[in-house]
Amino acid sequence: MAAAPVWSVDPRSGKRREQVAVEATDQEVDAVVRAAHAARGALADRAVRAAFLRAAADRLEAARDQLVEAADAETALGPVRLTGELARTCYQLRSLAGVVEEGAFLDVVIDHPDAAATPPVPDLRRIKVPLGVVAVYAASNFPFAFSVAGGDTASALAAGCPVVVKAHPGHPALSELVAHVVRAAGTRHGVPGSALGLVHGFDAGLELVRHPRVAAAGFTGSLGGGRALFDAAAARPVPVPFHGELGSLNPVLVTEDAAAERAEDIGTGLGASMTLGVGQFCVKPGLVLVPAGGSGDRLVKALTDAVSATEPGVLLDRRMRDAFLAGIAGRAALPDVESPVTPGAGGEHTVGAGFLTVPARRLAEEGVHDLLLEECFGPVTVLARYADEDEASAVLARLPGNLTATVHLSAREAAGEGRGADVLARLTPLAGRVLVDGWPTGVAVASAQHHGGPYPATTSTSTSVGGTAVERWLRPVVYQGVPEALLPPELHDANPLGLPRRCDGTLER
Amino acid sequence: MAAAPVWSVDPRSGKRREQVAVEATDQEVDAVVRAAHAARGALADRAVRAAFLRAAADRLEAARDQLVEAADAETALGPVRLTGELARTCYQLRSLAGVVEEGAFLDVVIDHPDAAATPPVPDLRRIKVPLGVVAVYAASNFPFAFSVAGGDTASALAAGCPVVVKAHPGHPALSELVAHVVRAAGTRHGVPGSALGLVHGFDAGLELVRHPRVAAAGFTGSLGGGRALFDAAAARPVPVPFHGELGSLNPVLVTEDAAAERAEDIGTGLGASMTLGVGQFCVKPGLVLVPAGGSGDRLVKALTDAVSATEPGVLLDRRMRDAFLAGIAGRAALPDVESPVTPGAGGEHTVGAGFLTVPARRLAEEGVHDLLLEECFGPVTVLARYADEDEASAVLARLPGNLTATVHLSAREAAGEGRGADVLARLTPLAGRVLVDGWPTGVAVASAQHHGGPYPATTSTSTSVGGTAVERWLRPVVYQGVPEALLPPELHDANPLGLPRRCDGTLER
Repeated sequence: MAAAPVWSVDPRSGKRREQVAVEATDQEVDAVVRAAHAARGALADRAVRAAFLRAAADRLEAARDQLVEAADAETALGPVRLTGELARTCYQLRSLAGVVEEGAFLDVVIDHPDAAATPPVPDLRRIKVPLGVVAVYAASNFPFAFSVAGGDTASALAAGCPVVVKAHPGHPALSELVAHVVRAAGTRHGVPGSALGLVHGFDAGLELVRHPRVAAAGFTGSLGGGRALFDAAAARPVPVPFHGELGSLNPVLVTEDAAAERAEDIGTGLGASMTLGVGQFCVKPGLVLVPAGGSGDRLVKALTDAVSATEPGVLLDRRMRDAFLAGIAGRAALPDVESPVTPGAGGEHTVGAGFLTVPARRLAEEGVHDLLLEECFGPVTVLARYADEDEASAVLARLPGNLTATVHLSAREAAGEGRGADVLARLTPLAGRVLVDGWPTGVAVASAQHHGGPYPATTSTSTSVGGTAVERWLRPVVYQGVPEALLPPELHDANPLGLPRRCDGTLER
Repeated sequence: MAAAPVWSVDPRSGKRREQVAVEATDQEVDAVVRAAHAARGALADRAVRAAFLRAAADRLEAARDQLVEAADAETALGPVRLTGELARTCYQLRSLAGVVEEGAFLDVVIDHPDAAATPPVPDLRRIKVPLGVVAVYAASNFPFAFSVAGGDTASALAAGCPVVVKAHPGHPALSELVAHVVRAAGTRHGVPGSALGLVHGFDAGLELVRHPRVAAAGFTGSLGGGRALFDAAAARPVPVPFHGELGSLNPVLVTEDAAAERAEDIGTGLGASMTLGVGQFCVKPGLVLVPAGGSGDRLVKALTDAVSATEPGVLLDRRMRDAFLAGIAGRAALPDVESPVTPGAGGEHTVGAGFLTVPARRLAEEGVHDLLLEECFGPVTVLARYADEDEASAVLARLPGNLTATVHLSAREAAGEGRGADVLARLTPLAGRVLVDGWPTGVAVASAQHHGGPYPATTSTSTSVGGTAVERWLRPVVYQGVPEALLPPELHDANPLGLPRRCDGTLER
């Protein structure tokens, strides 16, 4: 059987640009994983990892023009957005280098012997060690930040784990290019290219998560694909952690008071957020609870103006475009659903933004309108008009897990008067990030960031963005009664590396 | 259909003592879980949780005589061991109260806005929140420390999660008694009894892990039962974390130098460790790599003397006894396996300790001897006699994951000369706890403790013992742009509760 070709496709024309590679066979996946496993020793030293991550950032920046051009040719996301995304990716690599150097992620805990305890405590010294080879499934919508050199790869390398990336079919040429740049950075620091493997093909992706030498997986993508891989990871003879981001509706609640106070601002802000990147963000606000009366009508008017003024855009690929159009058609056909601005096909390869409205009571109980509670990728959002607080609360109570949940409050509510705290308490169980008076698009790379949430937002309690993303690829080991001569310096009493740690119960910094 | 009775059975006679309860129906499981979920608000306050945990310890101690008698009647573990285990359980409850009060487990991270970052950083404040109702599956072999008031329950309550325990059928009367005592402690602090549910029955246990209101599960038990529940947790429409401890061989390597230096001490120590609690510890050393020559023969002689002098003991129940005898028979019948002290039936309800030997080369490659690499619960261990270091390493490389891995070194090796560091590096990938010159039985309750390991030792990277056990029942939430008036005090700038935290990248204590 001939190897299946992997094509680079121009989303603006639907035409094939070039053949980039062939899909990996099972034997090839095996070879790539084994080579990555064999390279793990090269990542054992924290200083090497930090230097490698910084060098990767430097080289990606140096290749910026070439990379942005390659990314735009395959994703049509445009040079401005892609330049920003590449900068974010480099910032993330350097941030994680800092995390590696600080060493707090090692979670060192030392307990000296205590014969008086029940049972007696021997000498115990705990540290975290890398899990092994990490499989990373790249996303379509972030060709840099959630792909070959994205957060999953950067945090896994930071943890000391070799990586094998399953490239997204939407940008295979860029994937090869990024892998080449990162590998070149590694070579300068003694890290072989095999520490960052890259495979193409759907079947190769499934084979990857089943490989006995793969110790964990990170995924950003759709509910269907992510769940299939999650199931495969759980069904292995030796199950492995699968940290997947699978989908999110990102609900927004606009209180009656907030709408009365600044309906126009909120409507305009919503229009900008939901159409950003042609609506192709996992944190796009997909369901907005808006009051039913006059204030809500003003918000709808402002949103109508904002969305009507948005130019049609090119989606990432033909499959996305078909799914978007089908998703819109199914939703718009539901009873009581209206389309103040009808989303749909623009030109032959573009789509126009729009939004739907529905009475919130239609969503308060199970029924055909539950389709509106599923994510629809692309420039569309749903406004559910609620008659009173109970109706809004009933809809919130029915939502699946989300990456984000947002509330817009009036100044009085934000100051602690009225129902602000109550709303916040209702939103917290729904999501991993809760916003007041903001928009969920734009995920800052920061120590405190959490990009995750109850299923299906993510399949675990972890984050794929921020300093704590590294936690996913580690496991603790405690050494009992081990002489200092045999311990790594991280666990020596004198703390020669100056690590933050807990010693005999006390946190030391 | 009549409800299935739950009997308390005397393992010393095999006779039924009394009917304790009936197995829970699906409807009853549903009611217990919903009541637990409804009680979560009572656990929201950290001070209440700490007071509750301390009160539970006080009341369990006050009821010690009654509890130890009840436990001994159903487990035959004896009053000395059970008194110690109860003390350990109370110590653990109080330790976790301290963890709750300190608040480091909340992992508070605050980032103030930074417009210069790429992308800009808004005000972000991260904290951990409880997951929801936790299902706890009690163990047979630790009727206190890994059962109704054991580490899973204590750490879940510490995290703010209500608990529903699935009682172990080996000690149903004790389970009811312990639940009663803990609930009484809760009532004094405004925590309703429903915050600690208790159900009996195999089917009830499966129903429990499938219940939509159950948010996570903790399990200590067998590979078969644990894997079935793990699979059910993963197959849910909304999968939940399943933290299970499923089995461990706990390999021990005795170096040639160590055997030459102190074969008798090691043999005697091994005999004590493997027969402790009639060999019914999850950390019992089950496979010992011993050199083939004269030093190893001295070790075997010392072990023979120690094990021969051990009195027969009563196993936890008839099922365990049958499995032990069948396990021994299958192993002893393998080619080249010898039994210097034959383990097997003692009296009608007791078993005698023993051990088997096998040439290590029989374990170096896949074959019928792989049975010796599976855990055999009860007072037996397997000595694999190795001809050289390569043979020992070949066996280590074939082992599944373990809770512990141990090496006995000579004084010279322990001082860093010779192969000590190399052996430690080989053992670290095998286990969550690595010991030098000790025995794995005896799991200290301490900040640094890690009781877990690569599958099947545990199904996740977490621990069920020690201060970090609480991490399993939490998820992070980050608040973005939320006015201080609406934030919990844990996230206020002034840090009014004095929490350890990370602020703008810097660790604060």
